[in-house]
Formats: sequence, structure tokens, C-alpha cells
Amino acid sequence: MIIVMSSDASAADIAGVVARIRAAGLSEHISRGTERTLIGAIGDERTLDPALFERMPGVERALRVMREYRLVSREIHPEPSIVTIRGQAFGGRALQVIAGPPAVESDEQIAAAASAVRDSGGHLLHGGVFLHSETPYGFQGLGVDGLARLGAAATASGLPAVAELADVRVIDAFLELEIDALAIVAHPMGNTELLREVGRLNKPVILKRGPAATLAEWLMAAETVAAGGNHRIIFCECGVKSLEPGYRTLLDIGAIAALKAETHLPVIVEPARATGKAWMTPPLAAAAVAAGADGLWLDVHPNPAQARCHAEQALTPAQLSSLMAALRPLAQVMDRTL
Amino acid sequence: MIIVMSSDASAADIAGVVARIRAAGLSEHISRGTERTLIGAIGDERTLDPALFERMPGVERALRVMREYRLVSREIHPEPSIVTIRGQAFGGRALQVIAGPPAVESDEQIAAAASAVRDSGGHLLHGGVFLHSETPYGFQGLGVDGLARLGAAATASGLPAVAELADVRVIDAFLELEIDALAIVAHPMGNTELLREVGRLNKPVILKRGPAATLAEWLMAAETVAAGGNHRIIFCECGVKSLEPGYRTLLDIGAIAALKAETHLPVIVEPARATGKAWMTPPLAAAAVAAGADGLWLDVHPNPAQARCHAEQALTPAQLSSLMAALRPLAQVMDRTL
Amino acid sequence: MIIVMSSDASAADIAGVVARIRAAGLSEHISRGTERTLIGAIGDERTLDPALFERMPGVERALRVMREYRLVSREIHPEPSIVTIRGQAFGGRALQVIAGPPAVESDEQIAAAASAVRDSGGHLLHGGVFLHSETPYGFQGLGVDGLARLGAAATASGLPAVAELADVRVIDAFLELEIDALAIVAHPMGNTELLREVGRLNKPVILKRGPAATLAEWLMAAETVAAGGNHRIIFCECGVKSLEPGYRTLLDIGAIAALKAETHLPVIVEPARATGKAWMTPPLAAAAVAAGADGLWLDVHPNPAQARCHAEQALTPAQLSSLMAALRPLAQVMDRTL
Amino acid sequence: MIIVMSSDASAADIAGVVARIRAAGLSEHISRGTERTLIGAIGDERTLDPALFERMPGVERALRVMREYRLVSREIHPEPSIVTIRGQAFGGRALQVIAGPPAVESDEQIAAAASAVRDSGGHLLHGGVFLHSETPYGFQGLGVDGLARLGAAATASGLPAVAELADVRVIDAFLELEIDALAIVAHPMGNTELLREVGRLNKPVILKRGPAATLAEWLMAAETVAAGGNHRIIFCECGVKSLEPGYRTLLDIGAIAALKAETHLPVIVEPARATGKAWMTPPLAAAAVAAGADGLWLDVHPNPAQARCHAEQALTPAQLSSLMAALRPLAQVMDRTL
Repeated sequence: MIIVMSSDASAADIAGVVARIRAAGLSEHISRGTERTLIGAIGDERTLDPALFERMPGVERALRVMREYRLVSREIHPEPSIVTIRGQAFGGRALQVIAGPPAVESDEQIAAAASAVRDSGGHLLHGGVFLHSETPYGFQGLGVDGLARLGAAATASGLPAVAELADVRVIDAFLELEIDALAIVAHPMGNTELLREVGRLNKPVILKRGPAATLAEWLMAAETVAAGGNHRIIFCECGVKSLEPGYRTLLDIGAIAALKAETHLPVIVEPARATGKAWMTPPLAAAAVAAGADGLWLDVHPNPAQARCHAEQALTPAQLSSLMAALRPLAQVMDRTL
Repeated sequence: MIIVMSSDASAADIAGVVARIRAAGLSEHISRGTERTLIGAIGDERTLDPALFERMPGVERALRVMREYRLVSREIHPEPSIVTIRGQAFGGRALQVIAGPPAVESDEQIAAAASAVRDSGGHLLHGGVFLHSETPYGFQGLGVDGLARLGAAATASGLPAVAELADVRVIDAFLELEIDALAIVAHPMGNTELLREVGRLNKPVILKRGPAATLAEWLMAAETVAAGGNHRIIFCECGVKSLEPGYRTLLDIGAIAALKAETHLPVIVEPARATGKAWMTPPLAAAAVAAGADGLWLDVHPNPAQARCHAEQALTPAQLSSLMAALRPLAQVMDRTL
Repeated sequence: MIIVMSSDASAADIAGVVARIRAAGLSEHISRGTERTLIGAIGDERTLDPALFERMPGVERALRVMREYRLVSREIHPEPSIVTIRGQAFGGRALQVIAGPPAVESDEQIAAAASAVRDSGGHLLHGGVFLHSETPYGFQGLGVDGLARLGAAATASGLPAVAELADVRVIDAFLELEIDALAIVAHPMGNTELLREVGRLNKPVILKRGPAATLAEWLMAAETVAAGGNHRIIFCECGVKSLEPGYRTLLDIGAIAALKAETHLPVIVEPARATGKAWMTPPLAAAAVAAGADGLWLDVHPNPAQARCHAEQALTPAQLSSLMAALRPLAQVMDRTL
Repeated sequence: MIIVMSSDASAADIAGVVARIRAAGLSEHISRGTERTLIGAIGDERTLDPALFERMPGVERALRVMREYRLVSREIHPEPSIVTIRGQAFGGRALQVIAGPPAVESDEQIAAAASAVRDSGGHLLHGGVFLHSETPYGFQGLGVDGLARLGAAATASGLPAVAELADVRVIDAFLELEIDALAIVAHPMGNTELLREVGRLNKPVILKRGPAATLAEWLMAAETVAAGGNHRIIFCECGVKSLEPGYRTLLDIGAIAALKAETHLPVIVEPARATGKAWMTPPLAAAAVAAGADGLWLDVHPNPAQARCHAEQALTPAQLSSLMAALRPLAQVMDRTL
């Protein structure tokens, strides 16, 4: 940590900062410039809070030098990690496609969706069961019952099953129903308990970006999971809130490269949640593959116009097949398989 | 709902939209303009999803005409509501000040904070116990044990107790320890389960704005609580993420008037979380009072420079007293009491 | 335009709205719903300002139904337009690469940059001469003198020349020096005069997105140019300000498809300005091509580490060649030539 | 400037950074930590560009320690400055109210607006003449002719005149017509030429915040004006673009205190441009006064419902009088006069 003293800081102010650095078990290094004195705190700065220094007299600002995340960082783990969900390896040469309906609606519907995924060459099946509905008056998902239906369809189709989790109290259902991976939205604040619980599981976690999470907040959410012992984490970019009123969220394609520079973990992309428009999925899926994503999370519904939710964002089975066909030569150019 | 047809929509496209409107139990009203045909869906549009129409051929867009929230809206409840937390009425002429430390650290610390609140003329005591820490390596709060200490200090000082809740599993502790009100951060997504649970309680809820929540998302979060039967809701503005890198969040003072135009429920303001700087609390607290807020949520710590978290944002007891003294004549000018 | 009346609007309120619609030469269509009356204004609504209605008694909101832009819209011009800069066609099958240094520094430097562009297979040469410096103390560009040097290097290398324009007073210099195209940053506000002047020229305009411009604002900036008579407009996406502190701007790859759905004009992408990091240019350039961009605007400098400005974002000549080589098979998969 | 070396930086990398620091005429100070080496550049870092270092091998980041602005900073000018527009002092005890119509429409209209300003106790008259219209099809303002009408009405009413300037080519008209102050929108990019020209004038400048300008960008825009020799600058907060679709811009009341901590120059607030709603002006004007603003910029129109533009945001003369009456006791509590 670097503590920047203000131009009128006194010798006593500097001594106070030094005393606090030493009290935390670190040592100081003082650099007197023409306008400012800088004090470096040498040692593991993760135990120090910049705010404590900024409250002290004569201190202008305190800046962290080291990243706050370690376990997920490429700095201490330079090689890319492979994370496997029931035999499907994320982070290697193969692109992985997770596809399924925004919501599990019935056995027939999820079975039809599973067939569409398998027939188009997709690799894993997802299905929404606990919907983050924005209204208390709309469809909220089938809950644990839907999770069972998803699991059954996945088993029947031979695809691993993935579902989103938003409530710590249903983790047991995920384990009992042998759902293969959990997906969670990485909030910048407030679901710390959920991240901690998931950190104690032996299950892959797909960590979706929260709609207002910065890259650092997202990496720290992953660090919270990893700190619990679960390192099987896959990042899923799904857009961030922006100034553009025409988008639900703005898909941050640059996040793929930016994350891969910081972390050894795989990164996939979910275009449909961002745009909320099925017709924008193909160009953005292609962009994600060209930018180096390790896989895609896609929405498919046997009959989108009758979907109980998010009708606007699901592909038809034919659209999914055609998208997969278009992505294959692109994957080849990128030296990936699909 | 208004469905705007595209300029090349066919008669069959229009018939399709009409059929779907009727299938939902509503009736249609067709208006043919020079460039577009508009179709109005007449009846309770809350059961309709615009996305379903936007997926249909010939449809350009579908627009809701009515607000999605009802119970919290001023339209169906024009008079302001008073929400009372153990005798302290929010939404009337009296301004209410909730103050306390960012984190409960010990019996001595919370007792000293409670004295500071009471002596300065504050009305309720808060204390953080489940911290939304951004790092797994920092202080996470004392948890249920801290909640008990908060309750004890509140009882001893004669102040009602308020604490933030982030995990459904500790609701019972709030009830058993007789904490007087729950505060929750209103996420735009993902904590729907928590909002639903809180909707079933007979406890006032202080609904803090999520750092990226729009006003409509925040109102819908309140609607979710109200739909469960709990109408004792107080909105707490605490800033939104913005383009300004120097702020943690940008305090939206205009939200006070904007919310009060939409809802009958009280609105208070928390300046310190937004700015993350104790010295910015007094001007923003004054601005909130001048703009018509029903109360304030303030941070006070017996010794901020030794605080275990958020040292930068807590006032000292002396600063709190001096702020309260400065706010009193301002409250009087606004025809409020403090 | 649709005027949504409030639930308590009187017959007189409705009559007032109708009178104003008729006064503007349009006709009305009234639709009485269960909770609201809607009034449609039929005719060319571009002459109506929603704000005028929102100020009238009994009016809740007024919504435009038609887009405000016409000349640039795909609705009235469904076929894609080709815009040509000295023989280089944008918007057809060929991808166009405009490359050059962030700033023209000397004859030798711009000649070396021009060689790098030509040798790597780039198509047009750009060079910054009027820098939008954020500080009055830094390098501001060589101005008109730099423009002359750019023109000379372009002529010598056989490449068309493109430069950014920020000041109406130097338009004449562009014309006299026969610079082949003007590039301007599309501000949401305040440079309307510049857009109008450029609209009167017979020169292609590359309209870069302003750092906070919404898609609609950007389209309206193009409409302002087109309304002056100049329809030779190329959109250039270069990122928007976002919540991410690690980015200068966030590159909006989805804007390619979103714009192409709205306009018949070509769309190119400038990755380096957004990220401010040369190493992020290759994945984002690939993503832009995969998402359907008609070309790229790239930064190259003979010796970036000695650049007088934006050292961080320019590719070396070797990096440019290698990027062009990597993009060629990708272009082929997309059925484009490069 | 502090250069943070990456954990695997070599001795040669460090030597390279040191050589460049010395080449710029500064000296280095090296601090070797447990995980990182930090190199401080001692001297006037304003001549160094962090980007140049970030491009060098072994460098992780380069951070400025000093602010880039000097002339406008409180650090080198600790006492508040008073800026006077024809006898009206901004930055002292008196609050200054600048009021007028969004657009000058006719002699009668601007005269009526001037009377409303004078009768309500306002201090200066503004009137829009060069409108930043978002559409080429709407009213663009009366231009220089309108400026003359504004000047005449100001003279007749005895109020100083203020108008917005967006085009360098009309500066002469401002000088000839003896308009007392210029107001400009502080763009983050692109109007550098205008800022430079205004810096050469002997006229007060009201520097409005650009809709996406950070505080640092705004301060640097002021520095650009001041670097030209014109130090008579008044900041005017008018809101920033945000995630809230219901606002035009979000008024940043905290900017008053945040700016005053950084600069010695006066700060005023314009509520109506932000909200675009006349009914939100009174609570936000009160908030601005309570938060310490030195004045207000208000919109008044003799008949808003017939305004040629921005009908939604102008107060009626009666509303202006009533707002001024409400603000007077508030100003008194704040120890200001109005």
C-alpha cells in the first residue's frame, strides 16, 4: 500500500502513519518528493484497509498496490485451469455450449429443449427454475419441482444439467437431484452468504456477472468462492447496465480478454440475457468466440412465442442449429473445436 | 399496453395480435395512423408480457401504459402513509434519525455509540452485524452474536434497534432478539426470495436502494414485499453507481421527490454509504432534509480511526451532535421537527 | 405520438389535448381503457414535442411512436448503402482497415506509419492532428501543419487520408489539402454547429460515437449531417463510458448489429480508443469482424514506446501485420474479403 | 508518479524505467517490497505520461500522485475566489440566481421573462439563443439575433445578461453585444478549441458540467480555460447521465462539496436541465442551497405551455416567485443572503 501524504503534512502526521503500518506487522519505506511525501507499506497489505489511513491527519489518499484476489489470479497460477462439468472440460481447446430454456415449464417442454440442444451439437442443458422475477405478479418458476424435471430431462438426453441458484436454502435440492453445476449471479453486494456456501461445495460453479459488477468485484466474488475451498469456477459474462436505454445490459466482449489477463479460470459468454433479443444472439455469439471465449450460454425454447417468460430472448431449435453450424468454421479459425 | 405495428405489418399480423389480446381476456382498440397501426390492449395489462408481442410478426414494439406496481403506488393510495418503528413515526412531520456504527464490534463500542445517538437527539440505533464484505479476508461482522449485543444496547439506551439483513436464514434471530426493524438492500435481481420472506413478516422494513437499481426496480422490490402482506416499508436512498470514479455511489437527492410522486411510503436518505467520506455527510444530510426526506440513516462510531470497517464514513459523537444541531433550524424552515 | 392521460383526467383535459393536436395539423384517435384514456396523434408527429403535452393538465406522459431520424433509417431506405472514400467502398463485401498513428509527429514518423499500413494490407491512412487533449499542458497535435504532412504521406503511399476534425474553423484546411474523409466525435450535445457544417460538404464523414452517446443520439447526429445534404456517413463505434473503472470506454460490440437494424449506413469499429491498451486490440478487432463490422480503425506507430501521445494504445508495425494476417481467415468465414 | 513493477520484473526493466525518469529531468526513488518494486518519480510529474511507462517491459501500472490541475486547485489557492458578473459576486455570502427562458423567442417574451426574474428577486438574466437541439427538424434558437434581443431586455431590466455559447465563431457577437458572461457545456472531449478561446477573453465563464464529465475532467476543462489567462470561472452542476431511464440527467448534489474541496472557484447548480421537470426544481433548488451552492440557474418562461422548446422544465413567473420566497429562510439558516 502507498500512503500519499498531503502537501502540508507534518512530521507527526508521518510518524503516525508509520506507527500504524508497524502495528499491523508491516514495515515502511518513506520517499520524500518535491511536493508530497509517499509512504510505502511493505509486507502483506491485504490485512490493511486504505480507509483507516485516509482518516488519519495529513493523509491525502492510500492506494493498494497488490490485487485483493490471489487464489483466482493468474499471477500466482499462471497456467490456465480446466474446469470440468461431468466430463465437459471448460478452458481447453473445446468450446462448450450450455443451452436450454429460460424457464422449465413442463416435462414435454424441457425434453424438447434437451433434444434441440443435443441435436444441434450443444454440450450441457440448462433450465430456469427459480426465476429472478422483477414482478411478484409474474411467473416465478417451478422451483424444486422444476429442478427435478430438468434433472430427468438431462439424464434422458445424456447431457449434464446446470441450473441457476439464488437461495441458500435450496442448495440441498441441487445436491440430492445431482444437478451437475450451479450457476449464480455475482452480485457486487449482498449475496456474500450464498458465495460462501457455494465455496464449501464440491460442485462446479458458473459465476455470472452481476448487472453492475466491475471486473474487480466479480473477481472478488470468485475469490470468496475459492476461499471456501471450491476452485471449480467458470466466469460467465452476461452484460452490464449502461447508459443505453435500448439494451437490457450491454455485453462486455472485452471482458473476455481482460479477465483472462487476470485469472486462470475459464470464461464463457451469455449473449441473450444482455440484449434481451433473440436476433442479436448470433452476431454476439460469433463475437464472443472470435474474442476467445471458452464457451457460450444460450437460450433455446421449443416454441418461444409461447414461452412463459423471456419469450423475446430464446432461439428456436432451428435457429440454434443454424447458429451452431455458423460458429463451427469460426471456432476452427480460432483453433478451437465445437 | 400499446402494440406498435411495423410499417409493413400485414392484416394477418394485426389479426394475430388481436387474437392474443383476446386470449388473455382483454379487448383491443385499433388506431390506424399514416405510417403505423397501433393496437391498444384494454383491461388489466399486468398479466401481459410485452416480450410476447415483440416476438410476433409485424410487431415493432409493445409498451406498457400502466405501472407494474400497485400496492405501493400513490395512484391507488394518494395519501402519504406513516410507518412506525416502535413508536417512531416515519412519513409525518417529525424527521427520524437512525444512527449507529457501520459494525457492532463489542458491548462497550455499541453502548458508546448508543449513548452518542441518544445524546445527540437521534431516534433509533442501527449496527452492522452481517457485513457485505467485498473480500473474504476482511472482517465479516459478528453475526447473530452481534445482533444480540445490538439488541441489548438498544434496550439499555431506550432506542429502537435496526439492523441489515442479507440472508433469509437469520430472519428467526431478528424475531427472537426482537430487533425492531429490518433493513435490506434492494437488489434489482436475485434476492427475490429474501424480499418474499420479509413480505410475510409483521416488522417494518427499510428498503435500501441497490447500487444499480432504477427507481422502477426499487418500487417493484417494494411491491414484492407488499404483495406478501407487509406494507410497513420505508425507502432509503443510498446512492447509485455512476461514471464518477471518485464516488463509491452518487447520492440521488432527486429520488426523494421522484419517489414521493410515485409512492405513498416514507423516504429516508443515507449519505455516508454513497460518498464513503465522513466529511461529505453534513452537506448531503442538509440537502436531503431540504429536499423533503422523512429521515436520515447516519453512521457514528465512538472512535472512527479505530473502526474495524468503514472507518472513512463514520462521524465521531461530537460530529454527530454538531450535525444534529445544524439540521434543527433547517428542519424548522421545512416545517419539520427534529 | 400517444398521449397517456392520467386516471383522473377530465373531459376538458381530453378536449385540450385534442385541440392542440388539431392545431398542429394532425388528427386524434381516442381509446378509452379501463384505467386510462389514450389519445393517438395521427400524422407527422416529428413536428410535435412530447414535452408540450406533458405540461398540460390531465396528461401523464406523451410517447413518440415514430423514430425521429428518417434519412439515415433503414425503414425508408431498406438496402444497405455503400460509402466510398477515394475508391475504398465501405458497406460492401470488402472489409476496410483505416490505420495510422494517434498523432502525426513528423514527416518521417507519418511516412513510416503509412508504410506499415500499406505493407500490412491496410486501406486508408489516418493521423491525429488536432488532439482532444484532456490537459492544457500536454501535446495538442501539429494542427494544420500536421494535416499537410498527413496528406503528403498519404499521397506518397497511395492511400486515402482521413483525419479527425473538432473545430469548424479548420474545415477549409481539410478541403484545400484534399484530405479524403473527415472523422468527428458524435457528441450528444454541443457540436451541433460542426455537424451542420459537415452536412454541407461533399466529403465522406466518419461519425465516431461520443463517449456517452446513446444509439438514438448517435443516429440523430447522423441525421443532422444527412439533413444538410451529405449522406456519405460511416458510423464508427469506439466505446461508451461505463461503470468499469479499468476501461477508458467499454466497446459496444452489440452496437454493430443494433445499428445495422436501424440504419442503411456502414458501421466500423475502433477498438484501441476504448480499451486504451494495445494488447486488447486483437481480440476486439476479431470480435468486431465476427459481429459483422464493415471495417476497423486501428492505431499503429513506428515506435509506440516513443509516441508523443497514446503510447499505450498503438500497435507496432509487426503487431499490425500479424493482426491483419489473423483477421484474414476470419473475414473469409464471414464471407468478407480483407 | 509511482511506477509499480510487476512481480517478475528484471533488474534491466527497473533500469529502463529509471533511465526514462531521468531523461524527463526527474529523479527516482526505489522501494523494494516483498512482492513488488515501486519506483517513485520525484519532480514535476505533469510532464510525464503514465502511458509511456505502462508500455515498458516489467511495468504493471503507473499512477499519478499529483493532480493534473493547478490553477483552479484549492491546494495552491486555499482561499475561496469571488467571481463577479457585472457587480454580482459569486462565491461570497450572497446567493446569486440566474434565471431566464430556455430560448429567447421574441422581444415581448424575453422582456416578460426579465420582469419575472427582477420581480422575484433574481439577479441575472439568461436566455437560450444557440440551442443544442437533438434534432435537425426542431427549433434551433434565434442565434445572434436572439442574443441582441437578450441584451436589450437585460439592459432594460437592469439585469446582467448571460448566454450559452457553443460555437467559437460567435464569440465576437458576445463581445460586441456586451453580453456579461458566457456559459459553456464542459465536454469531456472535443470542444478544447472553444475552451482555449474562452480562456483568452476577459469575460466570466460559467462552465456547465458535460453530461458525462467526471469531476476530474470538469476540473481539467476549467484548467484549460484558466491556462489561457481567464480565471473568472464559475462551475455549474447540471447533472450527469446515469442508469436511471426516468431522468434526463441525475443531479449530483454531492458535487458541490466535492468540488469545493478541490477548487477555490464558485459552484452553482442548474436543477431543471437535469430533471427536465419543472415540478422537481423546487426540492432540488432547496437541496442545492442546503448543500452549500453559491447560486442557482433557473428556467422561467412567461407561458411555459406555449414555449418553443423545453416547455417541460420552465417555471411560471408565479412559481419562480414562490420558489424564491421559499428559499429565502433556507438561505438565512445557511448564513447566506438571497
